[in-house]
Amino acid sequence: MPAWTLPQPMQRALELAKASAAAGEVPVGAVVTRHGEVIAEAHNAPRETHDPTAHAEILAIRRAAEALGDERLTDCELWVTLEPCAMCAGAIVHARIAKLYYAASDPKGGAVEHGARVFEQKQCLHRPEVYSGMGEARAAEMLREFFRERR
Amino acid sequence: MPAWTLPQPMQRALELAKASAAAGEVPVGAVVTRHGEVIAEAHNAPRETHDPTAHAEILAIRRAAEALGDERLTDCELWVTLEPCAMCAGAIVHARIAKLYYAASDPKGGAVEHGARVFEQKQCLHRPEVYSGMGEARAAEMLREFFRERR
Repeated sequence: MPAWTLPQPMQRALELAKASAAAGEVPVGAVVTRHGEVIAEAHNAPRETHDPTAHAEILAIRRAAEALGDERLTDCELWVTLEPCAMCAGAIVHARIAKLYYAASDPKGGAVEHGARVFEQKQCLHRPEVYSGMGEARAAEMLREFFRERR
Repeated sequence: MPAWTLPQPMQRALELAKASAAAGEVPVGAVVTRHGEVIAEAHNAPRETHDPTAHAEILAIRRAAEALGDERLTDCELWVTLEPCAMCAGAIVHARIAKLYYAASDPKGGAVEHGARVFEQKQCLHRPEVYSGMGEARAAEMLREFFRERR
């Protein structure tokens, strides 16, 4: 699927994932939008920042909340190149993100359609609408390449 | 159980939870220790900081990793007054926390012995040793009082 058929925020998330790999970080990028406008973006950065919580989603959510001056991102969408882990899925719930778009699924670390399945828990206080698969091939290939080079 | 029988880090976490309530935040406190020394501490702060990820555990983990200059807190223990949620349990995994001590269990939001049960997932890459119950009565009473006053 050619990249230009992707919604712009997912294209941007893929560019951020590429920048992540160039910085020596696992290639994952994330963008927060609101009413069609980009509010915040980030790539993975735990190594550079010595912060185990610095996944692309967490950084983008924190920046968006700071930009809006509100811990709730009620009208916002999160676009990310990889299925969120339990930490990031939990943050999506706390932030009340309305819609989650992710590219590649992650059987090893994902917690949306795998493992902890955070949004499917009865106790889950907020469930975003979830759309996956857009940009999957490119996102997954970047990850494979990254780990191949490091083996 | 009188407070002075509690290990010092859990006493400190309870003090932090009290400070959290005084600041208008849900009363949860967290302390990271290493070789018996306090490395970092925090109380809940999402409202004050407009940061939905600013749970006591996340803040304490981020501060500890910054203090040690390492995204892995391999030799560290986390002491927290409430059972961690999915976000915080995920962060504990990423940080490779060795031992987790929590006071009160949280049937509504906890993800250690409830809901997502993050550490019990097959895909979970790291499982801390988990100890719960120390300081439970005080931690739970602080939470009840906080929500009672706000109803």
